[in-house]
Amino acid sequence: MEIKPIAYIHTDFCEKFGIPRQSGRVPDLIGEIVFTPEFNNPEAIRGLEEFSHVWLIFGFSEAEYKEGTMTVRPPRLGGNTRMGVFASRSPYRPNSLGLSCVKIEKIEQGKITVSGVDILDKTPIYDIKPYIPYSDSIPNALGSFAEEMKCHSLEVNFPQELLQIIPEEKQKAVIGCLRDDPRPTYQEDDREYSMAFSEFDIHFTVENKKLTVISIDKKSNG
Amino acid sequence: MEIKPIAYIHTDFCEKFGIPRQSGRVPDLIGEIVFTPEFNNPEAIRGLEEFSHVWLIFGFSEAEYKEGTMTVRPPRLGGNTRMGVFASRSPYRPNSLGLSCVKIEKIEQGKITVSGVDILDKTPIYDIKPYIPYSDSIPNALGSFAEEMKCHSLEVNFPQELLQIIPEEKQKAVIGCLRDDPRPTYQEDDREYSMAFSEFDIHFTVENKKLTVISIDKKSNG
Repeated sequence: MEIKPIAYIHTDFCEKFGIPRQSGRVPDLIGEIVFTPEFNNPEAIRGLEEFSHVWLIFGFSEAEYKEGTMTVRPPRLGGNTRMGVFASRSPYRPNSLGLSCVKIEKIEQGKITVSGVDILDKTPIYDIKPYIPYSDSIPNALGSFAEEMKCHSLEVNFPQELLQIIPEEKQKAVIGCLRDDPRPTYQEDDREYSMAFSEFDIHFTVENKKLTVISIDKKSNG
Repeated sequence: MEIKPIAYIHTDFCEKFGIPRQSGRVPDLIGEIVFTPEFNNPEAIRGLEEFSHVWLIFGFSEAEYKEGTMTVRPPRLGGNTRMGVFASRSPYRPNSLGLSCVKIEKIEQGKITVSGVDILDKTPIYDIKPYIPYSDSIPNALGSFAEEMKCHSLEVNFPQELLQIIPEEKQKAVIGCLRDDPRPTYQEDDREYSMAFSEFDIHFTVENKKLTVISIDKKSNG
């Protein structure tokens, strides 16, 4: 089956590193869904204002699936445990389809602003569906290892003189991403990590579950 | 983007009429997901037994989308109110992708038995993802008109001599579908309706929110 984008989403993530593992993890992260000319039509979203959340079915455009791969190694399991690709939400999967639930913040002509995103900048969106709590919300579902990880977070030490480099309206989102622990695994080491966010590269270290921002570069092409 | 089925689902619905509006509405409805030869590999679902529910991304293979259509008329709004296609879960939508949450009942070699299905027999499945309650379950999301409809149900009068025609293990599912009101709209009329289920055609009428089964045919090709 051939599918084509109905919209693209614009976010502050131009690299995979630092993107929250699941949607909703960092409520302050904003994305803008911009419809393609074909669907830039107020009729296509008529009534959407009566819902608070939507599902996005999108393409993991940067994650190339290697045919025949049946398992993935979730970073949050240390990177060594193999799980079936259909027992994981990994981007490296057959058909490369992603699924995220985001909150509607604002609906404008040809554009929907959403929050709680976990999607790379310029990702193609193939479908938008309203979130229907009576069928979609199953609070007592069993979530396996993913559920056990939900409480993991870091203490963030972000010196004021560095924080003020980030525009005020984006500070909460950046801190939220750092608190969520952007490192590929939870292993302790003294490496310096770098997270690209909007036009910035944010450098940090982690020790004893405490993350310290050490410097920020502004990208020249930002 | 080109996508191809990773599995097909087998259910008791060979026609659209009578399929529950949303997944989970009729918990007794069983479906069998059978992987294509390429993904008939226990590795692909390793660890899935730790989850209770999965998302299915499937193709509305019987619902042809007419290009340029921006709105749909949800049957539960009487069939006259137009909603944007992206403000609805209608099968008639760009890219024809469906999304359902189902409960895992049994995992076997190359096959997953699930319950709470709302999908047509022989539907192609493009992805299976574990349901992760901490990001997917939003009990307080606003669900608009779809939410208001959740309490709608009919009283079912199923004479014992007719009910016994249905195999015992399918009786609950049939009653559940009838209780959910399979009619295209909620309008009162004295029409005779017919729901195809498994190898049976079940004929009924509805009066004052009471559904009465009047006869059952066994299909010759069943």
